[in-house]
Amino acid sequence: MKIIIIGYGTVGQALTKILYEKEKQLFNKYGLRSNIVAVVDRGGAIISKTRLKYSTLMKAKASGTVASDPNFGKPGLKALQVIEEEAADVVIELTPTNIIDGEPGMSNIKSALTNKKNVITTNKGPLVLALITLIELARHNGVHLRFSGAVGGGLPVLNFAKKSLIGDRIISIKGILNGTTNYILTRMAEAHISLETALKEAQLAGYAEADPSYDLNGVDTACKLAIMSNWILDKNVKLKDINVSGILDVTLSNIKKIEKKGQTIKLVGSIDDEKIVVKPQTLSKNNPICVDGVLNAVAFNMESAGEITLVGGGAGGVVTSSAILRDLIEIRRYTNS
Amino acid sequence: MKIIIIGYGTVGQALTKILYEKEKQLFNKYGLRSNIVAVVDRGGAIISKTRLKYSTLMKAKASGTVASDPNFGKPGLKALQVIEEEAADVVIELTPTNIIDGEPGMSNIKSALTNKKNVITTNKGPLVLALITLIELARHNGVHLRFSGAVGGGLPVLNFAKKSLIGDRIISIKGILNGTTNYILTRMAEAHISLETALKEAQLAGYAEADPSYDLNGVDTACKLAIMSNWILDKNVKLKDINVSGILDVTLSNIKKIEKKGQTIKLVGSIDDEKIVVKPQTLSKNNPICVDGVLNAVAFNMESAGEITLVGGGAGGVVTSSAILRDLIEIRRYTNS
Repeated sequence: MKIIIIGYGTVGQALTKILYEKEKQLFNKYGLRSNIVAVVDRGGAIISKTRLKYSTLMKAKASGTVASDPNFGKPGLKALQVIEEEAADVVIELTPTNIIDGEPGMSNIKSALTNKKNVITTNKGPLVLALITLIELARHNGVHLRFSGAVGGGLPVLNFAKKSLIGDRIISIKGILNGTTNYILTRMAEAHISLETALKEAQLAGYAEADPSYDLNGVDTACKLAIMSNWILDKNVKLKDINVSGILDVTLSNIKKIEKKGQTIKLVGSIDDEKIVVKPQTLSKNNPICVDGVLNAVAFNMESAGEITLVGGGAGGVVTSSAILRDLIEIRRYTNS
Repeated sequence: MKIIIIGYGTVGQALTKILYEKEKQLFNKYGLRSNIVAVVDRGGAIISKTRLKYSTLMKAKASGTVASDPNFGKPGLKALQVIEEEAADVVIELTPTNIIDGEPGMSNIKSALTNKKNVITTNKGPLVLALITLIELARHNGVHLRFSGAVGGGLPVLNFAKKSLIGDRIISIKGILNGTTNYILTRMAEAHISLETALKEAQLAGYAEADPSYDLNGVDTACKLAIMSNWILDKNVKLKDINVSGILDVTLSNIKKIEKKGQTIKLVGSIDDEKIVVKPQTLSKNNPICVDGVLNAVAFNMESAGEITLVGGGAGGVVTSSAILRDLIEIRRYTNS
């Protein structure tokens, strides 16, 4: 399959590494042959009619932008032009989330689908703003839109809910869906440090972005709840329907006050028939969703099967790449490229 | 779909209730119309050319055997004869596990598949002794063999591993797979009671059978590990390849000794490239698989995605029925009956 990658940060680079490293295994087991033919980052693009070499991509990126490659680099070339003009089976859209208008992801995804290219994305902006429209656009053009990595990172939350919970009714869902804030709250509780200090630690450890606002104010969790509601439960939820508070008001003394009772504070997102809420909650440490560090956890309260909880994944390039790879294999199964 | 149920204990009756209660919902959502046309228990059979009524089934069973029904009852009629002679799309085989020769489940399942009837079972005996042969027999006859409820009860362990973990390699698996022993160990730790007392409690609560040997000696967990190895990891493991010890040697003083360190003892089953083991292990209470009561938990250690844990389900008729229902819906998708 010919692949275009748009946005080339931690996840894009980790994905590239896995696709090349596991090349033989993926072909033998799934018939998947991944040919990355174009990559676009902020500095421009790198394009080849045939498969780009791993070393070429890494060397160019190490100079700041993939467009710096002397043979295949196209400084200043924009994503939309690459998506429209280059032949490819799949566009992997990995630009940062923007919940105002979803750009640039929204235009990239729409253009790819309109040009009959399958799309895999981890970008929550377009999914939150226009999931139903985008799925319809994919269907209309006979291609697939996949977004396993948008919720849960490497934890296959969406896939699990759609495929393994059939036949039973999901009464409610609740979970810890943001690795950054979970890391911060865990460090506050473990080391008795302030939120500010824990945030700095998270940034040093690579678990928080330079601007961690969407994590801290709960918007990232709210986006994931909207995607889960609309995709798993067939609702039509907008961000404004969600009651959101983040962790900025959680203090070390709040956490200390309850720790002797075997409790702690976590940023919990929850969905039931009546409302969707993101807020810091006191959880017993015995609660299966009460996980530490960058881990994610989601509990599905089922009508017959009781509570079923999924724990793991969380943040990081390799972990998120495993979700993208799942999508790639599923698309491979539906196509012959 | 015309359904024959063989073995009519807690699970069979709970399944019947769900199929009738959710009738409309299952038809609207999945196109599933379940017509139970025969049920067999130790006393004989109840058979009708058309759908049996819920009240008929329950009334007959309340008299000791379904064969007691004055109109449709066939006292003494054997499962094999019903499977061979009655028209049906699916045989749901729920007789008790026997790891010596798998009977009577083995013959029931083979006969159903040979007679081109789809099979759903929760009976671990035939699966442990002959999984590969049975799958081959199903394929040869153009029908399906499903067994979601055999591992994890209502926790969709097998389905999850096959469908949601593609693209990544499972390095190892470990988990708590037996609800009865987990209930006993939990009660010992919580209430500081002996194993014998906790076992009696489990029996009173309906969590342990009159003969709980397979639970206590670890064989039930070993069966589940064998099924997971052979089905998820494409191995060819026999029970004798598994190193099994149960919980009979776990004492209250063992548990008390480590509780202050935030640890407890659980019956853990584990699979890696080198060996498959069932034995009581000391776990930290923070470990995501360290769950209490009748809960099950399974952790998959993935090459890229890290550790992914599934918690929930466990024992009980309703919970196991939800797994059978999943199988029924999947079979419905492949057939037009």
